[in-house]
Amino acid sequence: MRIILVGLGALGQGLLGHLGEQADSLLDAYGLRAKIVAALDTSGAVVQPAGLDPAVLLRTKRSRGGLAGLQPYFRPGRRALEIIHTVDADAVVEVTPTNILDGEPAMSHIRGALKARRHVVTANKGPIVLAMGYLTSLAEEMGAILRFSGTVGGGTPMLDLARHSLRGDRVVSIAGIVNGTTNYILTRMGEGLAFEEALEQAKKLGYAEANPAYDVEGTDAAIKLAILSNWAMGTRLRVTDVSARGIKEVTLADIERAQAQGKVIKLIARCDGKVASVQPELIPKTDPLNVPGPLNAVTYTTENVGPITLVGKGAGGRETAGALLRDLIDIHLRSK
Amino acid sequence: MRIILVGLGALGQGLLGHLGEQADSLLDAYGLRAKIVAALDTSGAVVQPAGLDPAVLLRTKRSRGGLAGLQPYFRPGRRALEIIHTVDADAVVEVTPTNILDGEPAMSHIRGALKARRHVVTANKGPIVLAMGYLTSLAEEMGAILRFSGTVGGGTPMLDLARHSLRGDRVVSIAGIVNGTTNYILTRMGEGLAFEEALEQAKKLGYAEANPAYDVEGTDAAIKLAILSNWAMGTRLRVTDVSARGIKEVTLADIERAQAQGKVIKLIARCDGKVASVQPELIPKTDPLNVPGPLNAVTYTTENVGPITLVGKGAGGRETAGALLRDLIDIHLRSK
Repeated sequence: MRIILVGLGALGQGLLGHLGEQADSLLDAYGLRAKIVAALDTSGAVVQPAGLDPAVLLRTKRSRGGLAGLQPYFRPGRRALEIIHTVDADAVVEVTPTNILDGEPAMSHIRGALKARRHVVTANKGPIVLAMGYLTSLAEEMGAILRFSGTVGGGTPMLDLARHSLRGDRVVSIAGIVNGTTNYILTRMGEGLAFEEALEQAKKLGYAEANPAYDVEGTDAAIKLAILSNWAMGTRLRVTDVSARGIKEVTLADIERAQAQGKVIKLIARCDGKVASVQPELIPKTDPLNVPGPLNAVTYTTENVGPITLVGKGAGGRETAGALLRDLIDIHLRSK
Repeated sequence: MRIILVGLGALGQGLLGHLGEQADSLLDAYGLRAKIVAALDTSGAVVQPAGLDPAVLLRTKRSRGGLAGLQPYFRPGRRALEIIHTVDADAVVEVTPTNILDGEPAMSHIRGALKARRHVVTANKGPIVLAMGYLTSLAEEMGAILRFSGTVGGGTPMLDLARHSLRGDRVVSIAGIVNGTTNYILTRMGEGLAFEEALEQAKKLGYAEANPAYDVEGTDAAIKLAILSNWAMGTRLRVTDVSARGIKEVTLADIERAQAQGKVIKLIARCDGKVASVQPELIPKTDPLNVPGPLNAVTYTTENVGPITLVGKGAGGRETAGALLRDLIDIHLRSK
């Protein structure tokens, strides 16, 4: 499988790591020989139709000179769309930074790749929450496969569980903790830290961005809920359809009151197929969604087997890159 | 897909329920038209190559007369192997009672079905724990597919998660609560009930058998651990390779001592690829495996994405029948 890798941040690098370390086992277990024929960051592209060694690519990217160090393959300033259209490849992995306003530049990359009949793997929430329906239809029309496991739950296979492992069943509702930053903050507040202190800790540990509004106000969770629900229940939610309230108004007194009732306060994303919300909720301590720290969790309630909960890390370059790899394997097995 | 259903207990009846209720959606979503061409209980068989209506079959089975009421299709005293060999079918669903000593009669049914090149779906732990390797090889040799999702976790897709949703990753260890009865008893003991009282409650609620030794002494959990580990990690454990200690020696004092340390006592089945054990263990209250009542849970620790925990009901006819249905869909999609 010839792959164009668009984006060389933590995720792109994580994928290169897996592809390098697991080359033999991927070939053994799935017959997958992944060949990076082009890779791009903001400085330009490296292109080599015979395939670039993932380990060399990774080392070059991390060196001071960046991709320019990979001569004679470096082409400065080259843009992704041009590469997607001119370099022969089977799949495009799109891992540029997320933009939830218009999904760009990922939206154009994904659309361009699908129109060129290339399969697409992405962990980019922007295009998926804005246009899952359009993009999956486009993929189908072009005979290409679009996969986006890494958009929700990091490496935890939340989307895959809903569709594959619950075949023949119907998800009737979803409730989940899909933002690790706020879950970490609420967990620390449960130990007595004030909101601001807990937020500082989250920043120090790399869980929260410099501007944490996106997490704290519930936007990130609303985006992920829309993706989950549209995928698992076939709804057509836009982010603006999710009534979102973050954790800024949660006080230590609220948390103590909850604890006195044997409960905890969690930022719960919830959809019953009609109403979708993200808000602080009281849940019993014994609820499987009561997971600590930056963990994520989702409960699918299904018709045949009742509630099923999946818990795991919700972020991390290496972990989310594991989801990209799963998607590549899935495409490889389906397109054989 | 023409199906021979061997066994009409809670599981067989649960499957008939799903097939009856979901006939239209299975056809729509997967192109699956499931046709029961024969069904057996201990009284005999009903055979109808054109297919038996699942709802009628269910009603007949539950009526006082049993299968004999389904004239002219009833054949008294007919045995499963004979039906498997003489009735044309694509798949055999084997749901007779579990026997972990020699796996019979399920072992002969499954072997006979595979040798007749019929796909097999079972929730029967006996043959799977005794001979997973032999039976999967036999299936491969005959060009048939063998699936047994319902053997562990009831309707909770524990086996499927390990293989499908963690593709491209490697499970390095397993820890789980795979016996609902003992988890219920330990949960109630955590609320102050003595072992005997908690056991009585479990019996009243239908969680524990009249003879609960199989659960309480850890045998059931050891069987499930062997299946999980052989499936997810490629080990070749026999039940006797699992060092199993049940919950009979756990006292209320032990549980109080655990609580004083912020911990709980759970019957944990654990395998790191080499050593396999089932024993009461202290785990932190915040561990995702700390699930209450009769719930089951399993944590797979993987190379790429770290620990992932799946929680759900571990039993129930309707729920486990959901796993049988998933397996039938999987076979249908693979054998198309």
